[in-house]
Amino acid sequence: MRRWEDISISERLARSASPAVDTVGDLDAFRELMRSSAATMYTNVERVALSALSDWYECTDTGAFRHRSGRFFTIEGVSVDVPSMPIPRWDQPIIRQPEIGILGLLVKEFDGVLHCLVQLKAEPGNCNGIQVSPTVQATRSNYTRVHGGTETPYLDYFRDRARHRVLVDVRQSEQGSWFLSKRNRNMVVEVSGDVEVHDGFGWLTLAQVHDLLGQDDVVNMDTRSVLACLPFGEPAPDERSRHSTGELLGWLTETRASVDISVRRKPIRELNGWHYDGNIVTHEDSRHFDVIGVVVQAHGREVGTWDQPMIAARGTGLTAFLRTTIDGVPHVLVHAKVEPGIFDVAEIAPTVQCAPETYIHLPRQTWPPFLAELLTADASRIRLDVTQSEEGGRFLRTRSRNLIVDVDEPVEHPDYRWVTVSQLAELLRHSHYVNIQTRSLLACLRSLRDSPTAVESIV
Amino acid sequence: MRRWEDISISERLARSASPAVDTVGDLDAFRELMRSSAATMYTNVERVALSALSDWYECTDTGAFRHRSGRFFTIEGVSVDVPSMPIPRWDQPIIRQPEIGILGLLVKEFDGVLHCLVQLKAEPGNCNGIQVSPTVQATRSNYTRVHGGTETPYLDYFRDRARHRVLVDVRQSEQGSWFLSKRNRNMVVEVSGDVEVHDGFGWLTLAQVHDLLGQDDVVNMDTRSVLACLPFGEPAPDERSRHSTGELLGWLTETRASVDISVRRKPIRELNGWHYDGNIVTHEDSRHFDVIGVVVQAHGREVGTWDQPMIAARGTGLTAFLRTTIDGVPHVLVHAKVEPGIFDVAEIAPTVQCAPETYIHLPRQTWPPFLAELLTADASRIRLDVTQSEEGGRFLRTRSRNLIVDVDEPVEHPDYRWVTVSQLAELLRHSHYVNIQTRSLLACLRSLRDSPTAVESIV
Repeated sequence: MRRWEDISISERLARSASPAVDTVGDLDAFRELMRSSAATMYTNVERVALSALSDWYECTDTGAFRHRSGRFFTIEGVSVDVPSMPIPRWDQPIIRQPEIGILGLLVKEFDGVLHCLVQLKAEPGNCNGIQVSPTVQATRSNYTRVHGGTETPYLDYFRDRARHRVLVDVRQSEQGSWFLSKRNRNMVVEVSGDVEVHDGFGWLTLAQVHDLLGQDDVVNMDTRSVLACLPFGEPAPDERSRHSTGELLGWLTETRASVDISVRRKPIRELNGWHYDGNIVTHEDSRHFDVIGVVVQAHGREVGTWDQPMIAARGTGLTAFLRTTIDGVPHVLVHAKVEPGIFDVAEIAPTVQCAPETYIHLPRQTWPPFLAELLTADASRIRLDVTQSEEGGRFLRTRSRNLIVDVDEPVEHPDYRWVTVSQLAELLRHSHYVNIQTRSLLACLRSLRDSPTAVESIV
Repeated sequence: MRRWEDISISERLARSASPAVDTVGDLDAFRELMRSSAATMYTNVERVALSALSDWYECTDTGAFRHRSGRFFTIEGVSVDVPSMPIPRWDQPIIRQPEIGILGLLVKEFDGVLHCLVQLKAEPGNCNGIQVSPTVQATRSNYTRVHGGTETPYLDYFRDRARHRVLVDVRQSEQGSWFLSKRNRNMVVEVSGDVEVHDGFGWLTLAQVHDLLGQDDVVNMDTRSVLACLPFGEPAPDERSRHSTGELLGWLTETRASVDISVRRKPIRELNGWHYDGNIVTHEDSRHFDVIGVVVQAHGREVGTWDQPMIAARGTGLTAFLRTTIDGVPHVLVHAKVEPGIFDVAEIAPTVQCAPETYIHLPRQTWPPFLAELLTADASRIRLDVTQSEEGGRFLRTRSRNLIVDVDEPVEHPDYRWVTVSQLAELLRHSHYVNIQTRSLLACLRSLRDSPTAVESIV
């Protein structure tokens, strides 16, 4: 009956990641479905002044932008103090959304092969209309239906843990420089019974999802986050890793215990270095991001029309790993990054996570470590170079280049550590260790043909 | 040179926990040292009205008690809302001490046996003067020397992780009903070189510390907390445990994601159900605890005289495990307990953690689950029954009965889980999973002759 217990989860994931197995549907057909769906499922986005939003207002008490219902999210100003950092103090707007939503992926075996039920979803911020999202992508406001829309399909599978096999259930943070303590519950639930496939949903193997990850802006951020949390069977940690997992945990404890960070709210109009003219909120040097207003008309989605503020980043971000092989085991270089919105001071970040346009005109000695190596890497060293979108419900056409560059020698830096993919997987069983940028890169890394996942998956 | 790498840490801990090995000092001599030290190392504690404290004042802005330096800690009022709980709303005073201090235990091998450097320390709240504390017990205020005392001995061993072998380095929370987000960095550091033994310090094996844990009020709370974090080599998790560790993590995620808790500050004089007359803060039903003022004269300690507020609990607490054997492996029954001061909504708590005097006069159906079974257990079932003190720097003569009761069958309750000691040990590699009451019980449990630790330790 419960045949899934015959084989371990990691083996079943590896099989699903193998291009050789039978699939429920053809990937070309899925791509055609994405194209054809674009005719019925799309959003029209019109930019308007923040002060012209009808459902949102600038709260006189707090100086923040709030929804008239008091729900969804707010955009607030904060003043950040981190005395031990190179930039010890700054002000910025930030999205506050303390509710914990669900990013849920439903999986099911067909002919012995796990498939994921993905959803085609048009979000107003997407640069290309439709992207592939998890089965369920629900804020609390969504699933308590504050906006009066229809019930989120498949949500019940994730509401009652006892009814199905839960493969992943862990809260993970989102961008710590854009969100204040934003966390989502990343869940993967396996079902055995029949599942009705609604319009705009489809079953894909992990190999098929991995193929889609090789294309720009197809697999959305929420999906990448959930995929990263899957318990793939990469080689066991600690045996041939540069540092033991205990050492990595101690390194994080050291950072988290020694850095003082204070984040205080401040009215948006009083933020140093930022300007709000009733239209948009901008940085005085035209850097970082803008807060803008949009009116959205959605077709083929739960609700027809609404307006909202969004974040629009200036330029494309860079999210990159240096990778090397140590004692025969691939390692990537990570950093314990302190960000104001992070739930617990610092999380593991990629080798580089920045907006290159902030630095490109400055002398190289002011650049973040390893940025120059990554931007000037020889093409033969580049293993992955794909641009992925940030979450299209909050971010307007905001994208990051995901880059993986191989190096021969494990360069050392006191604030960085070489870790194995299996160590990241081990840490991802827990909340708040591995940041969203690292999760996105990890999902992409596993899609490479030379990743341990793919090597193992040739069954 | 670094001979400690020849044998795994867990084996070396097990050896140190064996009564059969050679020890640097005799335990009777150590007990005699405790008695004789009491003549020179003691505190005189005089109760005074809170309004009569000279170094502390009631802040007019916040209605909290603060030190005139603005440091150490504050005692604040909070209003707690947890809509999904049986008691959905209450007010209470709470200690706010957001700085992360260090609880550090120095260990060193003598003749192949690990010894811990413990400290005899007289704290004003101790019911019996001197207790055994870790090598270093330092708040940030301590080690930045706000109080103008002398430098904390041995602190440098814990300041620079790179110089020594770090066996434990993890932040753990303290009592979530008394402290708001209080966390200490629990550290165990192994040294190989010579260590000068200052007056009032001594080397003990784990077996000797375990002997002391069998006595009331000898091993202080901070020591019990650090001991619980030691990576003992209990049998590996998941193989014969009732639930996989992944299932336990999912269970915690479920609780943490689904419970809404809000903790808002409120002036102490405005707390519902509490009364402050300028002398002490008391609950209107004389329950829970009082906030009192004391003047302390210390001898043999860093600073001569000071005054401070303290918490004095009403009655002795109960902290208890039900224990049983499932498939040949001992399991204890735990609970995911929501408390207002906890850093992340809920942590793993023992089977029962309460003040029995709150319930004893009420009908049994209103008692917390399993309290009746524990209080009425047959003597032949009681494996541990020892009263341990809470931290004597903040709590006046506040104690908890630590109880372990064996049962034949694993009784089930939807909100409780049977876990193995090795699963608790695995979770204790991480912060904020296992609460202080569970850590205290775990340290005591490992001191029992029938614990897996002791069984393995007969080398």
